[in-house]
Amino acid sequence: MTDHRPASPALLTDRYELTMVQAALADGTARRRCVFEVFTRRLPPGRRYGVVAGTGRLLEALEHVRFDTRELDWLADERVVDDATLSFLADYRFTGSMVGYAEGEMFFPSSPVLVVEGTFAEAVLLETLVLSILNYDSAVASAASRMTSAAIGRPCLEMGSRRAHEEAAVAAARAAVVAGFAGTSNLEAGRRYGLATIGTAAHAFTLLHDDEPSAFASQVASLGTGTTLLVDTYDVRRGVENALAAAGTDLGAVRLDSGDLAVLAHEVRAQLDEAGARRTAITVTSDLDEYAIAALAAAPVDSYGVGTSVVTGSGAPTCGMVYKLVAREGSDGVLAPVAKAARGKASVGGRKAAARRLDSEDRALEEVLVAGPDELVRGWSSADASLRGLHVPLVTDGDVDTRWIGADGVRRAAERHRTSRDELPRGARRLSADEAAVPTVTLRLGD
Amino acid sequence: MTDHRPASPALLTDRYELTMVQAALADGTARRRCVFEVFTRRLPPGRRYGVVAGTGRLLEALEHVRFDTRELDWLADERVVDDATLSFLADYRFTGSMVGYAEGEMFFPSSPVLVVEGTFAEAVLLETLVLSILNYDSAVASAASRMTSAAIGRPCLEMGSRRAHEEAAVAAARAAVVAGFAGTSNLEAGRRYGLATIGTAAHAFTLLHDDEPSAFASQVASLGTGTTLLVDTYDVRRGVENALAAAGTDLGAVRLDSGDLAVLAHEVRAQLDEAGARRTAITVTSDLDEYAIAALAAAPVDSYGVGTSVVTGSGAPTCGMVYKLVAREGSDGVLAPVAKAARGKASVGGRKAAARRLDSEDRALEEVLVAGPDELVRGWSSADASLRGLHVPLVTDGDVDTRWIGADGVRRAAERHRTSRDELPRGARRLSADEAAVPTVTLRLGD
Repeated sequence: MTDHRPASPALLTDRYELTMVQAALADGTARRRCVFEVFTRRLPPGRRYGVVAGTGRLLEALEHVRFDTRELDWLADERVVDDATLSFLADYRFTGSMVGYAEGEMFFPSSPVLVVEGTFAEAVLLETLVLSILNYDSAVASAASRMTSAAIGRPCLEMGSRRAHEEAAVAAARAAVVAGFAGTSNLEAGRRYGLATIGTAAHAFTLLHDDEPSAFASQVASLGTGTTLLVDTYDVRRGVENALAAAGTDLGAVRLDSGDLAVLAHEVRAQLDEAGARRTAITVTSDLDEYAIAALAAAPVDSYGVGTSVVTGSGAPTCGMVYKLVAREGSDGVLAPVAKAARGKASVGGRKAAARRLDSEDRALEEVLVAGPDELVRGWSSADASLRGLHVPLVTDGDVDTRWIGADGVRRAAERHRTSRDELPRGARRLSADEAAVPTVTLRLGD
Repeated sequence: MTDHRPASPALLTDRYELTMVQAALADGTARRRCVFEVFTRRLPPGRRYGVVAGTGRLLEALEHVRFDTRELDWLADERVVDDATLSFLADYRFTGSMVGYAEGEMFFPSSPVLVVEGTFAEAVLLETLVLSILNYDSAVASAASRMTSAAIGRPCLEMGSRRAHEEAAVAAARAAVVAGFAGTSNLEAGRRYGLATIGTAAHAFTLLHDDEPSAFASQVASLGTGTTLLVDTYDVRRGVENALAAAGTDLGAVRLDSGDLAVLAHEVRAQLDEAGARRTAITVTSDLDEYAIAALAAAPVDSYGVGTSVVTGSGAPTCGMVYKLVAREGSDGVLAPVAKAARGKASVGGRKAAARRLDSEDRALEEVLVAGPDELVRGWSSADASLRGLHVPLVTDGDVDTRWIGADGVRRAAERHRTSRDELPRGARRLSADEAAVPTVTLRLGD
């Protein structure tokens, strides 16, 4: 049978990345210094900001991008590339540099969220992997951030694993936590990234038993009175009665997974309070998205379980981020800006630096991109205290900055997200469709 | 740093699956025989059918679901489950059985696309993994099938890796091929599943060079005149001239990735023909979906490269498939149907068999589900030649049927898809929004 999991992410890429390397190796351009930028041309319709996520996963994957025997043999057998290219790939290591927006940071149209510098061959090879990770994880984080905004401090819990590819589910859980979710049902995400995991029982557990009281008694006996009992398998009012009979008024929580959640939450809260279970929490699930969460703001709900909507980006399942060559060494050895002219897809050439301009109350006013001759942009930093620089070092001459990876990286990203979101202009977190929360302006140095 | 890839898919699951097992082990219900069914309550708005995909991947993953030291230590450290449950997990093997719709088969609302039978503990543990795989892969195949219908025989090529999680991208390529795509740009999908891979160069390759003629000359020198040249980096007409200058009239193809593709295709075809390059093909890419493909039916286009739309299910990025307990052994030892009554989510209890009723021209008339006492449904088969049974054995007493896995499985699934789609009623492949192509009827035996 086919082994179903690769040892290396090296082949998680488009064929044309390798055939371009082959042609460039043959003509000598493979060694030209290049600068690639990752950005999106627009936000999804109505969205006011995006959230960068996946950076930590990208840096973790980068260390494993190696072409070993399995990959090389297959490429040779399939004649994907020639022998010279196979030799190059066998020795492949990314020795270039990357700077980018810190994971968790907000982004806007044209924000250069990642800048990759290296030879053409080493940098172009990473295009597909970089985009796969950033596009998916940022789509999830961008949706999740709207949900945690709408929840106004109540915990959001990610439960969407079953509605995403099984590995995407792990990335989604991680990205949701970057954007403020309090935990996830996904165990592998918990293991890999030190996330809090949650969950007690599904309807199947109640149905497995001869009746609801025996199911609840079993769950409380095994998981304790602090557990969450799912009370809507048959009849909610009766379910709450059975839950209290099984656990007493110390019951941790009840979960509602169907029906009119606002009405039910009020009824169940009254029923719990009347029985003296004032500290028993109510958690709601069932196809929640940011709008449903906002609509429940006045209901006595203690936490939200969110599934499908968060793992599919709430209507925007991918970001439109692209990985574009913006500068390259020419035959004269000089790094020069480049840009294609294709209709509707034209881009601004040259390396860009990026900063956010803040007002006197530290509210974001605009996204400032700085373009111009590479040596000016590189050295660009402003004495202007109103500008907060956005690029942080991620990889320097092939060395990955380990602050961004693993569980620490997720914690750091969640902190960045919280701080940067607080910096958005008042009203930027409204769910209603509108323009980007701040305009993007491009300054040109040396013009 | 965190290791980023699990050895086993065992923890690619929701925490509640394991806590349910713990409680059920403690009260003895973990050993009850159970039947779970996977089905969707509805198709995405306007869709007329869905396509089952992911079955082969599920069976491949199933053989790797093992709780080894890494998983067990983490579960113990985090106190996710108790010692008795850890012992159970350490010995975990799925020893039950599965039947289901063959991969590539059409499905409709309520179609029992997978039926899992085993003890509660062994079967419930698989819920999340089963749904992750089937929901994502079927979403992609369902969208892909509309695209290959709209293409009316012209090849569709999957190029969406960068717009999906990096592992989802592999699954998406595979699912697209199940639904009739001719190949993919994703190399890992090619390696794992024996898929044809395609791709030559991106705009970056042209921009890397000092000018377009030198880029094209380099590409042709390295990849041959049969290559595909991307002609829209600067100006299409000039791009085609440069392409012909580099490769001559034996040039394999030109690719258009921007602009009004229908108009450009006509212009480029005329330009190529005039130059004598009558066999040079035109391939188009750039945000195609099934509607854009249909709109290009009259344009001189030879193949379609599809990206974002196919890997995100063209507006429906996940199927709404659920994994429901439909029958379980009670305390009396008798297998009895069960169903929850939760509002809006009520389901039909009991194991179901499924068949498609065909007319005298082998066109599908209806989806027939057969419910009733388990022994009757199990033995159900009709002398009625108008019924084609839909369940095929996938796992028997823990043994995986290897016909469905690896490259052979994909070929078999693509064949099933082709045959079953041809069987749909005339008009079922229209893209316009409508009801399911055939109604689902449920017969009850023994009533």
